[in-house]
Amino acid sequence: MADPWQECMDYAVGLARKAGEIICGALKEERSFMTKSSPVDLVTETDQKVENFIISLIKEKYPSHSFIGEESVAAGEGSILTDNPTWIIDPIDGTTNFVHRFPFVAVSIGFVVNKKIEFGIVYSCIEDKMYTARKGKGAFCNGQKLQVSGQEDITKSLLVTELGSNRDPEAIKIILSNMERLLSIPIHGIRAVGTAAVNMCLVATGGADAYYEMGIHCWDMAGAGIIITEAGGVLLDVTGGPFDLMSRRIIAASSRAIGERIAKALQVIPLRRDDATN
Amino acid sequence: MADPWQECMDYAVGLARKAGEIICGALKEERSFMTKSSPVDLVTETDQKVENFIISLIKEKYPSHSFIGEESVAAGEGSILTDNPTWIIDPIDGTTNFVHRFPFVAVSIGFVVNKKIEFGIVYSCIEDKMYTARKGKGAFCNGQKLQVSGQEDITKSLLVTELGSNRDPEAIKIILSNMERLLSIPIHGIRAVGTAAVNMCLVATGGADAYYEMGIHCWDMAGAGIIITEAGGVLLDVTGGPFDLMSRRIIAASSRAIGERIAKALQVIPLRRDDATN
Repeated sequence: MADPWQECMDYAVGLARKAGEIICGALKEERSFMTKSSPVDLVTETDQKVENFIISLIKEKYPSHSFIGEESVAAGEGSILTDNPTWIIDPIDGTTNFVHRFPFVAVSIGFVVNKKIEFGIVYSCIEDKMYTARKGKGAFCNGQKLQVSGQEDITKSLLVTELGSNRDPEAIKIILSNMERLLSIPIHGIRAVGTAAVNMCLVATGGADAYYEMGIHCWDMAGAGIIITEAGGVLLDVTGGPFDLMSRRIIAASSRAIGERIAKALQVIPLRRDDATN
Repeated sequence: MADPWQECMDYAVGLARKAGEIICGALKEERSFMTKSSPVDLVTETDQKVENFIISLIKEKYPSHSFIGEESVAAGEGSILTDNPTWIIDPIDGTTNFVHRFPFVAVSIGFVVNKKIEFGIVYSCIEDKMYTARKGKGAFCNGQKLQVSGQEDITKSLLVTELGSNRDPEAIKIILSNMERLLSIPIHGIRAVGTAAVNMCLVATGGADAYYEMGIHCWDMAGAGIIITEAGGVLLDVTGGPFDLMSRRIIAASSRAIGERIAKALQVIPLRRDDATN
């Protein structure tokens, strides 16, 4: 039987590349931004323009599909995940980087059916790196197969995470004390390039051994999540339990051992789920 | 009058590129490492091989010059800066990245005469970005002129720094509480790519607004320091006073205003100077 979703994936790769061209073009001009949930949660006209571009072209081709897009949700649309084929889109993952021209900015597209990710695309457009993964068929960057490091020893690990855009003093304290606990194990180090999707793809390449974060959204994780698992990695909740795409938290690790050791170190930040209805 | 040091600089650019080729070649094989000052302060055979390669070729051409190289100092050579023309060399800035294949690894060469940096070279070899600056002649990346952002408003700034390889609990506490104070101002965010030299070059490009760190060495700063100032930025001590290459601490900022605001937020970590003799 032909793969029913391969056509969708091929179409989405083309859209991600075009979206990346729009973003790279806008980088030469745009510096103005607005704020969303906090004075440091930034959005630009390019975020909205790119999301409209991607969604309108997919809708034209697949009118029965559902959508969860970062900017559509910010504009008031729902983000309840059903069993219907659903495109989960972050037009610019790394908007703060985009505003500053810090050179990591990604288009993220995840495609979910019956609540399972079928394929994911992360296009890190300034680097011109196209990361893709189709369920059961492996993960690739510019056509080259990806493999996580497989590291199981936390004391030999390099982690990626972010300080995030939450400026609530209690949340900052937890984020920093989690880093303190991890550094003290000790681990080799922590890196942060400013986009969840690119951080996760760096784990998929084997360049880092795990990524964890709390406070991100389904559109930050859906594209890169399957890139991790198809590269041989695991997704866990920050408690060490099963990963939940709508929970706003993730550990993406090169091995279950590393993921569970990180979970043991983390204090959890209370967060409103992406699919909360009240 | 001809520029007396331009020939040295041209020669060093060629050496940095060849050193980068050695490093990129070794990336395909090397994963073994030893440790230096702490269980997470890593060194590989490639660090030593690349430093020997660079220093031996410069010595052949300029036998009267002095040298301060990271691995030579680790092997017991002194690091006292005199007025003699002195090459300050980090063969691999980002050794932990190198071990993990996290894609930011740089060759750093600074050239200092009468204790002033005359030129600097940072070759980020996986990205193939050659950053250079000659005093009074501007800073460049792959031939393109660099300019810092010029941002003066700390609340609109993106910073780069590192958690470092010091695992002393008191030092970790200060590093994290400094981040807490900066995040609470608030600032847009903090990034960390894992090499001081590349972090500083990102400030020179305008992609970040300032870099600060304590605990690094003269070989981490000498090459990129002049790239910052020739791109229009400023170097300060972490107290806000004049920058001191041998002090193991730095603020490299896109404007004096941002640099001084960061200095106000930082608690200082006590450190042994690079040129300490006892």
